Amino acid sequence: MQIAIVLYDRFTALDALGPYEMLCRTPGTETVFVAERPGPVTNDQGALTLIAQKALDEVPDPDIVVVPGGPGQRDQMTNETLLGWLRTADATSTWTTSVCTGSLLLAAAGLLRGRRATSHWRALDTLATYGAEPTGERVVVDGKIVTGAGVSAGLDMALTLLGKVAGDEFAQTVQLAIEYDPQPPYDAGSPQKAPAAIVDKLRDGASVFR
Amino acid sequence: MQIAIVLYDRFTALDALGPYEMLCRTPGTETVFVAERPGPVTNDQGALTLIAQKALDEVPDPDIVVVPGGPGQRDQMTNETLLGWLRTADATSTWTTSVCTGSLLLAAAGLLRGRRATSHWRALDTLATYGAEPTGERVVVDGKIVTGAGVSAGLDMALTLLGKVAGDEFAQTVQLAIEYDPQPPYDAGSPQKAPAAIVDKLRDGASVFR
Repeated sequence: MQIAIVLYDRFTALDALGPYEMLCRTPGTETVFVAERPGPVTNDQGALTLIAQKALDEVPDPDIVVVPGGPGQRDQMTNETLLGWLRTADATSTWTTSVCTGSLLLAAAGLLRGRRATSHWRALDTLATYGAEPTGERVVVDGKIVTGAGVSAGLDMALTLLGKVAGDEFAQTVQLAIEYDPQPPYDAGSPQKAPAAIVDKLRDGASVFR
Repeated sequence: MQIAIVLYDRFTALDALGPYEMLCRTPGTETVFVAERPGPVTNDQGALTLIAQKALDEVPDPDIVVVPGGPGQRDQMTNETLLGWLRTADATSTWTTSVCTGSLLLAAAGLLRGRRATSHWRALDTLATYGAEPTGERVVVDGKIVTGAGVSAGLDMALTLLGKVAGDEFAQTVQLAIEYDPQPPYDAGSPQKAPAAIVDKLRDGASVFR
């Protein structure tokens, strides 16, 4: 089984690496980081450079596609090389997945029309403009499309997916192996829970995102 | 302020990238991935290659040190270049931190003697052999040393640290920005919660770690 994790300039690191850490241990699986061109790809904060092992056209039919989000997603919304690859890959994939604003790329490729899907909480309205039915859920499974909410939701998206791909026992084994027993020191991880002033600041585009 | 995230061959990706995603947005901060030599460093699963921007000796006095764990930690336990750097960096750092078996490297450098600390649940006994006082807690703050439990605990470790470095409001802003509102589909993330058969399998060294 082949898992393709898509990289592009100014992706958000945890969007890609959270699911990677969950999925890469699946027995009989090869995980490949892919980008339009192989080689170094730098994240949205500029300090992290990953190596894309293969070009998109070298990985035409992965079993699982993972599309991260990040500020660079905007520049990819009209990149027909990527969008065309997403359509082709989705035609034969077992699972097509995204994290955060990666779902906007699936949407721009026409893959979410009439489907329930999620995204970063700030991007749900935009998702609707592509004919998707946005929900505020953290993980949404609609047929073979699995979307996760913002950034860290990729961990929950991928653990959900891992259960479907490799069974509940294996998924729980990975959960224990990576000690995924979250205990955040604050309870401000969603717009329903965070102080209103913080929600407003981010909604207005505070630069914490860059 | 300078944050140095240490890389070495066969580190675990999320150990390094979870804290990175939390900490890199701190105002006025430069984050640097460092390794014995600058250049590509490959993780424990072999699919992920990050670029270390600088050699350890080019970053002698970071304000925050982050040491990830991973299977490759064992080979570093006698690497005097790394251990010496950890001692020197700790002498002037504001915070010296680790995730997972990264705490064993801090211990081997002599930095945890008589200190409360944590590690991956499978490594707590080993931690004690270096004179540390291991606890089963997810995040342990003892003076300026902050240690996190296994792999994904780096998110909680770093969010705790972020509150101390940049204040509660900023930490909550980052938590909301990366939508850290975890909702794992299983509750098997600690040896106290996982089915006993899974705990036993991992304790016996199941290859999910590689």
